[in-house]
Amino acid sequence: MVSRSGGTGRRTGLKIQRGQLHEGSSPSSGNGTTPRFFRCLPIRYRVKRVNTMIDIDFKEGLVPVIAQDHETGEVLMMAFANRESWEMTLKTGIVHYWSRSRKKLWKKGETSGNVQEVKEIRVDCDGDCILIKVNQIGGAACHTGYRSCFYRVVRGDRLEVDGVKVFDPAEKYPAANNPQEK
Amino acid sequence: MVSRSGGTGRRTGLKIQRGQLHEGSSPSSGNGTTPRFFRCLPIRYRVKRVNTMIDIDFKEGLVPVIAQDHETGEVLMMAFANRESWEMTLKTGIVHYWSRSRKKLWKKGETSGNVQEVKEIRVDCDGDCILIKVNQIGGAACHTGYRSCFYRVVRGDRLEVDGVKVFDPAEKYPAANNPQEK
Repeated sequence: MVSRSGGTGRRTGLKIQRGQLHEGSSPSSGNGTTPRFFRCLPIRYRVKRVNTMIDIDFKEGLVPVIAQDHETGEVLMMAFANRESWEMTLKTGIVHYWSRSRKKLWKKGETSGNVQEVKEIRVDCDGDCILIKVNQIGGAACHTGYRSCFYRVVRGDRLEVDGVKVFDPAEKYPAANNPQEK
Repeated sequence: MVSRSGGTGRRTGLKIQRGQLHEGSSPSSGNGTTPRFFRCLPIRYRVKRVNTMIDIDFKEGLVPVIAQDHETGEVLMMAFANRESWEMTLKTGIVHYWSRSRKKLWKKGETSGNVQEVKEIRVDCDGDCILIKVNQIGGAACHTGYRSCFYRVVRGDRLEVDGVKVFDPAEKYPAANNPQEK
């Protein structure tokens, strides 16, 4: 389970197997506790783990996730992920978020069909933000029908819509939940 | 101060002058209070304001801000802004954030000189995330010297560095605060 690269006394190159990561033994718990797998390691191993694995800092349980179109570079949306949704994204190759309003795991596009296929995942310097380059199925990320959630631009003291509308939300969502544009 | 577009009894097109917005009378206080300028308006005016001005939802006082290179589309960083930093960005045309670690207004690039000039500001559908297209002075946004803070990519169960390093942080920052890469 634990490998040591080199045999000179310097411990580097810790690895865990993919299955272990996905079963909840990721090294960064983000809630102040250390998963059992790591608690059993000598401290010198634990210190090294930061440099060698996917270490996400889930501040208060959540991390911001930016979805960017992998071809055009357009920023499509930003939402939050908790550990469960992050691991679901890694497992499935489909982007999952955590819905703060509904307080539940949110597979993006579950209702509309406009899921986001993972093309590349990047992590920032502090490990507290994730950037995912995606193939946006259906051509639109926004629940209002626009390609990007950022369909409004600041002009002077006002916001003006200049985004491209791809679908009519009334056709994608039940009338009771029909989202309103701002 | 308050204009009414049309004269048919329907109130639309509320405006405030730029100076008022920048002096802290923005319509969305985000802290549950209504600025004095809006408290004196009849409720029918207040309801309309959401559609007609820059209405940012500062959840718990902060809103995520994504900085994107205005030419290449590369996502450079993500940080948070409070109302003060948002208004400073609008006023100065230079991106300001709120440093959660230092708990203070953070003019990006104040130490390194690598400020971010605003080229375009976009707001998402829910008004709770801001996307700023910037001209990144110095060619690097990250305190580690990389062009983007997202200089690491997920490969299997590991993060690998594939970003471009533009400067040596030891030359930009005092030794005591010399940032370490993850």
